[in-house]
Amino acid sequence: MTAGFIKTWFSMKQNIYDDEIFFTGYYQLRKEESGLNKVLEIPAFRSLWPQLSGAAVLDLGCGFGDNCYEAINRGAENVTGVDISESMLQLARAKYKDPKITFVRSAMEDFEFLADSYDVVLSSLALHYIRDFQELVRKIFHTLKGGGCFIFSIEHPMCTARAEQQWAMDNNGNMLFWPVDGYRDEGMRSTRWFVDNVIKYHRTIETYVNTLIDARFRIKRLTEPEAPDEFVKENPALLLQRRRPPFLLLSVEKTRS
Amino acid sequence: MTAGFIKTWFSMKQNIYDDEIFFTGYYQLRKEESGLNKVLEIPAFRSLWPQLSGAAVLDLGCGFGDNCYEAINRGAENVTGVDISESMLQLARAKYKDPKITFVRSAMEDFEFLADSYDVVLSSLALHYIRDFQELVRKIFHTLKGGGCFIFSIEHPMCTARAEQQWAMDNNGNMLFWPVDGYRDEGMRSTRWFVDNVIKYHRTIETYVNTLIDARFRIKRLTEPEAPDEFVKENPALLLQRRRPPFLLLSVEKTRS
Repeated sequence: MTAGFIKTWFSMKQNIYDDEIFFTGYYQLRKEESGLNKVLEIPAFRSLWPQLSGAAVLDLGCGFGDNCYEAINRGAENVTGVDISESMLQLARAKYKDPKITFVRSAMEDFEFLADSYDVVLSSLALHYIRDFQELVRKIFHTLKGGGCFIFSIEHPMCTARAEQQWAMDNNGNMLFWPVDGYRDEGMRSTRWFVDNVIKYHRTIETYVNTLIDARFRIKRLTEPEAPDEFVKENPALLLQRRRPPFLLLSVEKTRS
Repeated sequence: MTAGFIKTWFSMKQNIYDDEIFFTGYYQLRKEESGLNKVLEIPAFRSLWPQLSGAAVLDLGCGFGDNCYEAINRGAENVTGVDISESMLQLARAKYKDPKITFVRSAMEDFEFLADSYDVVLSSLALHYIRDFQELVRKIFHTLKGGGCFIFSIEHPMCTARAEQQWAMDNNGNMLFWPVDGYRDEGMRSTRWFVDNVIKYHRTIETYVNTLIDARFRIKRLTEPEAPDEFVKENPALLLQRRRPPFLLLSVEKTRS
């Protein structure tokens, strides 16, 4: 199934989350929150959210809908969660039956972005799956109201540069350092994550930042989060994540003018 | 001489460029432009300069004064070049006897930054020698006129993270990849460059960008330059520099408001 599925990636948007083997592995990872999401990405990402009271929110690549629900908890008036994966959305719909949340099955790029419709656009760890970042950024700018914010997290370009995404190790399995290569060669990376051939797109930090500026966004924050001390105390293995940044987050604003 | 010189680094600002051995090596490097400056840093840095017609320019860490002179060539009304190294300034003064250029011997941090005095502040490959970036950024904001720009280049944080600043190699001397480690551990790095114990300060990209934003600068451009094609054609070894970014450049504006 995986191979056949993958072959179609170029003609259609990748939907790795509906691959059975992938989904089982990913579901287990997130259920146990044994990944870095809970300790690193989620706190950093949500710390960048503005006041959400009464806000109309769009969540691109909403997955299980956790951020949609958190946005409602923080007072958002309505949240639209968009995801390409039916498996993810089935769980999201079962878990969060809130009338203020609407889940839409769509590739992010194909979502109908109406003008001046949202106060906040969120995207957690999804945009490194997008081939045309510039085009999507233009659509997000278009769909935001003046003064609205776009906040997203991605795997750090230092981590997506090499397709392998593995620490360099010595013969005893000690992690020596994080290897970077091919940094300026932007484009597709085929990597292994539960299954082979998970397709990501590597872009430089320059491209992420300048594409946003060129679309007339104002950069408000750039974050390369590290695990908070309280999590490190519980789990000293997290110190490893201070040796190279696993995630890059950006918060930008569509200025009124 | 080097050791004694180095011992005082903490009580006074480092002035490695007045170390004889260092200076001889550095002078040769720049004279032959066998380093990356000519092909990578200089074109990228100067491409970020705004129109300089009639501008008052401050160049922090001006070294041999090449950027001061280029600024005059581009129509700047006056340029103040600041450097801690007397050896550098002697050569700069001998080379560029232009009444529009004033060279001042001072650590960047100790320069007298008068309010609203410059249209453009430049700094090429010098700010990674500065311990307190935040304080210096505040002074630069203070000394810029409204609408003025601050443009600087540094060694890329991916390169200053490990003090070694060396490619990982196999037994045959092939460069395997660029190793990153200790990325979140900001602070002093003692590295070897012509002499031992050249002191640099590693900071994350997050710190560079957010410090500027917190000082009320608007981010205009972030660049991780690669060698232009015409230089790569002449010297294919430059392809190596596309494997990891050697430099980070930022252009920011003190917005009128």
